[in-house]
Amino acid sequence: MEKQKVAILGPGSWGTALAQALNDNGHEVRIWGNIPEQINEINEQHTNKHYLPELVLDENIRAFHDLSEAVEGVDAVLFVVPTKVMRIVAKQYAEIAKGVPMIIHASKGLEQGTHERISTILSEEIPQQVRKDIVVLSGPSHAEEVAVRDITTISAACENEQSARYVQHLFTNEYFRIYTNQDVVGVETAGALKNIIAVGAGALHGLGYGDNAKAAIITRGLAEITRLGVAMGANPLTYMGLSGVGDLIVTGTSIHSRNWRAGDALGRGEKLEDIERNMGMVIEGVSTTKAAYELSRDLNVEMPITETIYDVIYNGKEIRNAICQLMLREAKPENEFED
Amino acid sequence: MEKQKVAILGPGSWGTALAQALNDNGHEVRIWGNIPEQINEINEQHTNKHYLPELVLDENIRAFHDLSEAVEGVDAVLFVVPTKVMRIVAKQYAEIAKGVPMIIHASKGLEQGTHERISTILSEEIPQQVRKDIVVLSGPSHAEEVAVRDITTISAACENEQSARYVQHLFTNEYFRIYTNQDVVGVETAGALKNIIAVGAGALHGLGYGDNAKAAIITRGLAEITRLGVAMGANPLTYMGLSGVGDLIVTGTSIHSRNWRAGDALGRGEKLEDIERNMGMVIEGVSTTKAAYELSRDLNVEMPITETIYDVIYNGKEIRNAICQLMLREAKPENEFED
Repeated sequence: MEKQKVAILGPGSWGTALAQALNDNGHEVRIWGNIPEQINEINEQHTNKHYLPELVLDENIRAFHDLSEAVEGVDAVLFVVPTKVMRIVAKQYAEIAKGVPMIIHASKGLEQGTHERISTILSEEIPQQVRKDIVVLSGPSHAEEVAVRDITTISAACENEQSARYVQHLFTNEYFRIYTNQDVVGVETAGALKNIIAVGAGALHGLGYGDNAKAAIITRGLAEITRLGVAMGANPLTYMGLSGVGDLIVTGTSIHSRNWRAGDALGRGEKLEDIERNMGMVIEGVSTTKAAYELSRDLNVEMPITETIYDVIYNGKEIRNAICQLMLREAKPENEFED
Repeated sequence: MEKQKVAILGPGSWGTALAQALNDNGHEVRIWGNIPEQINEINEQHTNKHYLPELVLDENIRAFHDLSEAVEGVDAVLFVVPTKVMRIVAKQYAEIAKGVPMIIHASKGLEQGTHERISTILSEEIPQQVRKDIVVLSGPSHAEEVAVRDITTISAACENEQSARYVQHLFTNEYFRIYTNQDVVGVETAGALKNIIAVGAGALHGLGYGDNAKAAIITRGLAEITRLGVAMGANPLTYMGLSGVGDLIVTGTSIHSRNWRAGDALGRGEKLEDIERNMGMVIEGVSTTKAAYELSRDLNVEMPITETIYDVIYNGKEIRNAICQLMLREAKPENEFED
């Protein structure tokens, strides 16, 4: 693949790690953000210490505070901002968009209120004539490990396989492997919803449960997010892939995950506001729990784990009793999402 | 459920933990084994220290050296012996079988040479007139955690749902939850084949790879064992359940798993014979790798992870190069087992 120009909107941990991967592949990478101090730090110190304290970026990676400058003449625009500001950033981009770049996103969440997937937000806000396809990047990927070039595999999903392959080739190198997938609804909902289950797995850990119980909540969690995804139009087998099982394993068993750590702290009796303040980063699983809970009501899908976490976070239910009741529900036939 | 008499054939870690669970439920439990010292230890000290050093068994649990005595008048016989002696024990049992008990097994492997599933071995060796159905128990369950009554969920699989429900009710209590499943081929192959992937995940850890790489091998491993299972007649969705994803998570991410520990030691450069000697217990993943490799050839199913581990264990291939080659294979579309 010849050298591409790529703008990355969102200089968090994941955007920064992806910037380095693209730069390693010889592409021209521009990072856009709206905090002047952070933009200056990237351009002058070549670091982004709040998000990836150890990383030193290549000097070729430039950061911009002006969105028009950042996206000038690019072949692809990668959105990696938190879900709650996705629509605002997409609108800002649409106002100054030129050319027909590929739109990619690597964020994981559902919009509050509308319950929309991120690719739907992007398709609504960015007119068709100023974009190629919209491709979703999702999979098991601690930014910290990609930043040190540990082997990582993720999915690139688009109905148009050619566009998924473009993104595959854009990112693939000897430590970063991209699998293509055409089930956008599946890959995107898997990435968003697994954060709920990660909060639950963390909570079990905080409450002192063992590995068998954690495997149980992850597996039953996978079953319920698959049920919701299937009701939204996804292929259930997608949830067995990198964006489903893969990401659940990384997020649901690892202390590196913010969502897992938030659950762990809840399990140890900390208050959500304190956890969010101490973390200093967005915990997508908290708002995704609300969106998924509301969706499950709208679509009449049973989601006992999501409902339990919703009750703990939003209704102040005592966590030990809530989780205990959850674990002792009547066991049923497996695979009921086939019905 | 009224009190049942259950004989457990095989006093290893799992048989012993299951004995305690059944005894907790008020059933009469007899353990059969062929090492006189171990039988005496269970009857006199109420311990089984080689397998579960911390456990003290209820005095109501009796152990037998005589198979006829152990199975006299029982409602159910639970086979939990290593795969390599399953046929021999089934033959011994068939010779003295009386009544029509439910046959249950909780072992995980494939027979060497024939590549048969354990329920097939049992159905071949135990005549139909001296048994009810054959039910498979499988799922994420470190024996050590069940022994301390930590919450654990597993599957009971039988084509006949009534028989699966019988086993569900036999075992279910407030720490042990059983889900029914009618896909015997799926549940049984998932339980057997996940041990191969656990060896692979352990090897990645031993070689120093991170969480992203481990999630990748577990996810891609799930895809390849699903491909083999589907070729053997299983429903792919079964692999998303407790016996598939659930058990892979427990086995593939936990130092408690013998298979994971064996892989970890291989990754750190230890020799297989030393690992097996130090462990002092059966490592099912080692022989399952051979059976699965041969089956994948017979059924023309691509299993790159299994093939890599086979090459390391049986062809002396250098592990670091082998794993590195595996991780850098060309990434493909996901879900190719749908084809």
